[in-house]
Amino acid sequence: MKKPDSIPNAEGKLGVLLPGMGAVATTFVAGTMLARRGLAAPIGSLTQMGTIRLGKRTDHRVPTLQEFLPLAQLGDLEFGGWDIFPENALETAEHAAVLSREHLDAVKDELARVVPMPGAFDPRHVKRLQGTHVKKARHKAELVEQIRQDVREFRARTGVSRCVAIWCGSTEVLPTINGAHQTIDGFERALLEDDAAIPASQLYAWALIKERVPIANGAPNAMVDFPAAVALARECGVPIAGKDFKTGQTLMKTIVAPGLKARMLGIRGWFSTNILGNRDGEVLDDPDSFRCKEATKLGVLEGVLEPERHKALYGDLYHKVRIEYYPPRGDAKEGWDNIDLFGWLGYPMQMKVDFLCRDSILAAPLVLDLALFLDLAQRAGLSGIQEWLGFYFKSPMAAPGLKPEHDLFIQLKKLKNTLRWLRGEEVISHLGHEYYD
Amino acid sequence: MKKPDSIPNAEGKLGVLLPGMGAVATTFVAGTMLARRGLAAPIGSLTQMGTIRLGKRTDHRVPTLQEFLPLAQLGDLEFGGWDIFPENALETAEHAAVLSREHLDAVKDELARVVPMPGAFDPRHVKRLQGTHVKKARHKAELVEQIRQDVREFRARTGVSRCVAIWCGSTEVLPTINGAHQTIDGFERALLEDDAAIPASQLYAWALIKERVPIANGAPNAMVDFPAAVALARECGVPIAGKDFKTGQTLMKTIVAPGLKARMLGIRGWFSTNILGNRDGEVLDDPDSFRCKEATKLGVLEGVLEPERHKALYGDLYHKVRIEYYPPRGDAKEGWDNIDLFGWLGYPMQMKVDFLCRDSILAAPLVLDLALFLDLAQRAGLSGIQEWLGFYFKSPMAAPGLKPEHDLFIQLKKLKNTLRWLRGEEVISHLGHEYYD
Amino acid sequence: MKKPDSIPNAEGKLGVLLPGMGAVATTFVAGTMLARRGLAAPIGSLTQMGTIRLGKRTDHRVPTLQEFLPLAQLGDLEFGGWDIFPENALETAEHAAVLSREHLDAVKDELARVVPMPGAFDPRHVKRLQGTHVKKARHKAELVEQIRQDVREFRARTGVSRCVAIWCGSTEVLPTINGAHQTIDGFERALLEDDAAIPASQLYAWALIKERVPIANGAPNAMVDFPAAVALARECGVPIAGKDFKTGQTLMKTIVAPGLKARMLGIRGWFSTNILGNRDGEVLDDPDSFRCKEATKLGVLEGVLEPERHKALYGDLYHKVRIEYYPPRGDAKEGWDNIDLFGWLGYPMQMKVDFLCRDSILAAPLVLDLALFLDLAQRAGLSGIQEWLGFYFKSPMAAPGLKPEHDLFIQLKKLKNTLRWLRGEEVISHLGHEYYD
Amino acid sequence: MKKPDSIPNAEGKLGVLLPGMGAVATTFVAGTMLARRGLAAPIGSLTQMGTIRLGKRTDHRVPTLQEFLPLAQLGDLEFGGWDIFPENALETAEHAAVLSREHLDAVKDELARVVPMPGAFDPRHVKRLQGTHVKKARHKAELVEQIRQDVREFRARTGVSRCVAIWCGSTEVLPTINGAHQTIDGFERALLEDDAAIPASQLYAWALIKERVPIANGAPNAMVDFPAAVALARECGVPIAGKDFKTGQTLMKTIVAPGLKARMLGIRGWFSTNILGNRDGEVLDDPDSFRCKEATKLGVLEGVLEPERHKALYGDLYHKVRIEYYPPRGDAKEGWDNIDLFGWLGYPMQMKVDFLCRDSILAAPLVLDLALFLDLAQRAGLSGIQEWLGFYFKSPMAAPGLKPEHDLFIQLKKLKNTLRWLRGEEVISHLGHEYYD
Repeated sequence: MKKPDSIPNAEGKLGVLLPGMGAVATTFVAGTMLARRGLAAPIGSLTQMGTIRLGKRTDHRVPTLQEFLPLAQLGDLEFGGWDIFPENALETAEHAAVLSREHLDAVKDELARVVPMPGAFDPRHVKRLQGTHVKKARHKAELVEQIRQDVREFRARTGVSRCVAIWCGSTEVLPTINGAHQTIDGFERALLEDDAAIPASQLYAWALIKERVPIANGAPNAMVDFPAAVALARECGVPIAGKDFKTGQTLMKTIVAPGLKARMLGIRGWFSTNILGNRDGEVLDDPDSFRCKEATKLGVLEGVLEPERHKALYGDLYHKVRIEYYPPRGDAKEGWDNIDLFGWLGYPMQMKVDFLCRDSILAAPLVLDLALFLDLAQRAGLSGIQEWLGFYFKSPMAAPGLKPEHDLFIQLKKLKNTLRWLRGEEVISHLGHEYYD
Repeated sequence: MKKPDSIPNAEGKLGVLLPGMGAVATTFVAGTMLARRGLAAPIGSLTQMGTIRLGKRTDHRVPTLQEFLPLAQLGDLEFGGWDIFPENALETAEHAAVLSREHLDAVKDELARVVPMPGAFDPRHVKRLQGTHVKKARHKAELVEQIRQDVREFRARTGVSRCVAIWCGSTEVLPTINGAHQTIDGFERALLEDDAAIPASQLYAWALIKERVPIANGAPNAMVDFPAAVALARECGVPIAGKDFKTGQTLMKTIVAPGLKARMLGIRGWFSTNILGNRDGEVLDDPDSFRCKEATKLGVLEGVLEPERHKALYGDLYHKVRIEYYPPRGDAKEGWDNIDLFGWLGYPMQMKVDFLCRDSILAAPLVLDLALFLDLAQRAGLSGIQEWLGFYFKSPMAAPGLKPEHDLFIQLKKLKNTLRWLRGEEVISHLGHEYYD
Repeated sequence: MKKPDSIPNAEGKLGVLLPGMGAVATTFVAGTMLARRGLAAPIGSLTQMGTIRLGKRTDHRVPTLQEFLPLAQLGDLEFGGWDIFPENALETAEHAAVLSREHLDAVKDELARVVPMPGAFDPRHVKRLQGTHVKKARHKAELVEQIRQDVREFRARTGVSRCVAIWCGSTEVLPTINGAHQTIDGFERALLEDDAAIPASQLYAWALIKERVPIANGAPNAMVDFPAAVALARECGVPIAGKDFKTGQTLMKTIVAPGLKARMLGIRGWFSTNILGNRDGEVLDDPDSFRCKEATKLGVLEGVLEPERHKALYGDLYHKVRIEYYPPRGDAKEGWDNIDLFGWLGYPMQMKVDFLCRDSILAAPLVLDLALFLDLAQRAGLSGIQEWLGFYFKSPMAAPGLKPEHDLFIQLKKLKNTLRWLRGEEVISHLGHEYYD
Repeated sequence: MKKPDSIPNAEGKLGVLLPGMGAVATTFVAGTMLARRGLAAPIGSLTQMGTIRLGKRTDHRVPTLQEFLPLAQLGDLEFGGWDIFPENALETAEHAAVLSREHLDAVKDELARVVPMPGAFDPRHVKRLQGTHVKKARHKAELVEQIRQDVREFRARTGVSRCVAIWCGSTEVLPTINGAHQTIDGFERALLEDDAAIPASQLYAWALIKERVPIANGAPNAMVDFPAAVALARECGVPIAGKDFKTGQTLMKTIVAPGLKARMLGIRGWFSTNILGNRDGEVLDDPDSFRCKEATKLGVLEGVLEPERHKALYGDLYHKVRIEYYPPRGDAKEGWDNIDLFGWLGYPMQMKVDFLCRDSILAAPLVLDLALFLDLAQRAGLSGIQEWLGFYFKSPMAAPGLKPEHDLFIQLKKLKNTLRWLRGEEVISHLGHEYYD
């Protein structure tokens, strides 16, 4: 990445396009509407609530990210998207039952005006849902063209100067990455041939990149992490980031595991179960979709703990993850973790973490941050994989040959030092010996 | 701190002096004896199990700390110390019931030879214990002299070339830092006047620094963090570090709190209770000793979360910490935390962390690391407060005017970057934009 | 007790008098109003939701308690009471924040009309509250007379044919039962002498019994369990019951402990902590009030487990109970229990119970059941201690010489068999050998 | 059942035959050997530790069950059994790693002499195991005959006067009960025809009943609960009981659910997960075996809560049970339950129960009690289904037309009242109005 000389200001409105307008997307949209009217706080969002230390500790320079960066403002956001069900954002939010009656009432008219465009959908890739509001086309190349047309119409209709897109749709079945995914030309050919290995998410990706719309992928799908998409993003100057929002249990895991590793405590077993009752839980009740999710969920521990480097500590770790559809809870999911650890001389200890969280409440601020940071990245001239946004993902994208970083604290360090570097500030290493001269 | 040109190798034997030879100290001593015979692994010790990444990620240079640093070897350690009870280390370890019969049997003769010297003790500062193996003297200056004499005799008897000391004794009552603690001369005068404000731990500190022995303080006592001690340490070229080993619940807190803060999740309440049944629990059953402990336990959240900077998130946090003496558990303590957090738009969530841990098992490897790192620091010519060892403490010492850092991950970064700096390697900032050129 | 020939029907209205109109009382009143309009279900109430098996299993006779017993109907209840703060039941319920806006709105006018009469109050007995709506009198005998006058006026104003009273007020400090409490005459004398050992709750008790109003005592106070009160109740033909509603953690304890004992599993330790943030929590933050509560909370385990009879299993049980005032929770209290048990050959096991409950939601249906059952008892001619209502209390009253029964399941058996006996049905012993002839 | 005039004393030795000699069986055998030498206490056993109240409370007659009943003594037990692996009880116990080295050493010679006879085994019924020590025969009738021969030889070899048998083997796949299971003749024919629907457990049952050996079935298999077996047991005068030992999570469920129901608290969801790492966990990792176990595990809630009778409270209960094979734990299994309950007006509450238990430690005393009670029953002239032993089982057998009772407390009441009735004592109903005359 080349450091920009300067970053142009965020002029005009920013369109936020959401493929998949369910609980997460509508919680994000409604919340942003509430926050910009001052009716609720955008808790959980680094761009809205965060600060950044600059220079030496004794300088006491700690601006907010709002002050430090030329970010788009909440008041300038326009919302759009696609879904395979026709309900508007108000109806969907009511059905999702995440937000209170009071909150929805306060923005109900504005919310009702956010209506999804028909979605691209392939029932072979999401088995538990039956779309009723879907695009029809002769082949996938035509679907890509329809999505591009949707973007152009959205731009014209709303008058936005820039767009970003955040996938908030369902988990697709575990993808096959084959020959068709290797090159731009090969992928274009496969689209024309209606290749069954191309899921809907990749159609959106292709269309959006071609329309110069930065993309963040909130699901474990291989939406943008295949070679052809990365190449196209570099070619078109589009930043991309993914994949799978890091919330709930996996967030906790990338907090706790680095902590145990910091102290060189061993781990013999980690058992994780989740109970949740929303549409996400229903989709993941399908074993194929679960396998896709399981892959990103299981990967984080290995990524953090590096068992190949710490055999005595993590070489025999038995890691099991379960997701259980449990309707009594709705969106209020619960993750229960049991960790069997061992310390000095091998003596066993245990830790239990019970996280009574809310799926969409944790995910919504990530949608906002990714929208604003991707827009910033594009204005700063960055393109292709944005490793510094790995902070937000269960399965962060990284350059070929690099192992993705899963440690939440290293991810945060990378994100903040990237912002310092973009603004010409000194990076921070926490060495600090100079205070003791 | 001035970077040393080079660090002399660890020639000869290293004496490890332990004021307070109870469960923690004997678990450390027995474990080191087992580890150096290959009978058990020193899990939890960074110096023994840790690695360090050097250079770029693509360089794949990740030596162990053993390879990277000229540390003293386990085989070269000699153990000594003081206690107010006369039992030898074998008897004490048996009574503490931390280690298994098998483990103790394997090193029993060696362990039985570690016999404490009589302790300095003031019953006004530790109320629940009645020492039976204590020094007698006309005033505190004479006690300091007796301790210095003990150190000299230990050196002569064992033939060690260097010594370090780690306080593993009980928590004293909440200390008063008064005029007598401000200057070297003033403190020396107060010793002669037998000032009641000087607890036993400070007598050890004074004697050890004068004998050029680096000190780490594992309890919340003000053993070395008062101005006169810091000045004496600088004057004598002695590194010091403290205070209060960060284990169990507080360790978890400085893992979880930075994680929630990283994501700008708000916290309304944090309730922590501990049940433990060892001598530590008995001492802390005294309200005055508990107040001393409570101070270091409560401080960490404020240190990590910076409520003054994040009012909307942490301004109203209600933090309560309880320690309950509960004999059925012995040394196997349990910390239960309830965290009331809130996210997007203020929606409440909860987290429960139940840590079924073992007090001495978590503390013992810290004793080892601190011994080896302090010895390294002294050979590297460092003196005074070693902020980079704050990783190990609930209440880290820092230069006047600096707020102590409590975030475990920043502490680890500082520790490792300090080691890189000492060895002339590049510090790591996790910026990494160059991989994307 | 003598079985009645028949029980007169519940003619006319029943007045429910509530000394102490805080969160519990108003949740009960509002809930009853909602339930009788069909707007919410009186979950947790045996009288409203319960059934009772009669005869043999193969008879399939299982009427509801409503069908089986001539109970007063919800539509016939009239509410009144006393409090030391002047707010009406709507205001108090709003402040308590137990019930939703929707629920309160549905009965707000009716609720606002329930206004407390000024309370009898002695600040020496409840230390953390400052009453502003209190009776004034020369001595306690006069206060008793004022309360009697209140009852007579309530009867006249509302036209009720019968009254019952349920203490829903605060916990007073641990009471002294002295000479004044032994006989009716002695107590009357002490009232005239303004004896400091008589707390407010006993003034209500004396007045209510004299007015022939049955009493249930929901707090750990010695409201009616002293010899003079029992004698007066027998003399006046008034049923009485107490003490301290069994909800939350103690309820769980009398469920789990009988289960472990049923299987002869040993218990070495039981640690219980509670966090709650309502007025109850505030009052119990005072050590004297806590000691009163602690007594009833600690007693249940001994009552259930009979350590004197099962030394090997429960002789060394270490039982510790803590209540922590923790404002973030309000009325939504949480009880966390750790149980250290042991089985076959002494091998240790553990159980953790985390009960995220709601104080007033658990207590309100008990108020309703006790009101209806006490009224039934009085119509059935019963008087004095009603041991069969021990089901509802942490510290059940029993005849002199009998140990109170704490096992929830024996209590339920006693309650239901008493109802069968009252109605001339066969008691059930679960012997059932006849099915195998 | 007909009450016996008197019960003959337990003369001579009692043989305890164990089909399936794994962790549970060897923990029982070793523990009994330790207990009869006074080296450990038979905690968890009602016959060894229990007491029984007789007459009125004020009589203070509470003998131990040992005093009250003519039970066989521990010193008179002889152990035998069958397994599909040839290891003796010492080897198996060592491999199971349930008991400590010290405990095994104390009885090692005696334990090593308990060697299993070759087992009857059908790999179609237990899929994850490969037996190496199995009987060979032309058809199942011949296998039955071989087992009978084993019993006769065991009697001759040991000189026991009576035998009982307790199935401690693995869970078989969900059984088919078909025409062959309806009558004694039909079943005998099916044995000769080598009917695939007859699992190994039923071969043992048939042989044992014919040898007049009472049987308790500790697994969810249909070992004795099919019409032909019940008929044969009545015909031969043999008491039988089953099925599936109630330990761990299901035990907790039949403790907690009756408690919540006693108070008419509603339940919307109950999620249970188990982690365990022993052979039992391995067998249950096979979906077919799990389905068999799941059936008995799911049934208990419906049995206790009677949703058909309490629709508003339990009509919509969502109950999910998971068993997860998790090797780090071995025999020390953990059951985590989340209960979503609701109270007054429908307000939601939650309860979490985390039971860190030990599979074999909980099961072993049940084996002992069942052996002694079945022997008592046979001497008392009882035969066929022993409903009063339902206390010990997840899925209690009951007379046709009766719903099995799952409430642990009603089961205990039935057990104790049956013992009182057998001994001519008054049954206890907890009515107790006479104390208040």
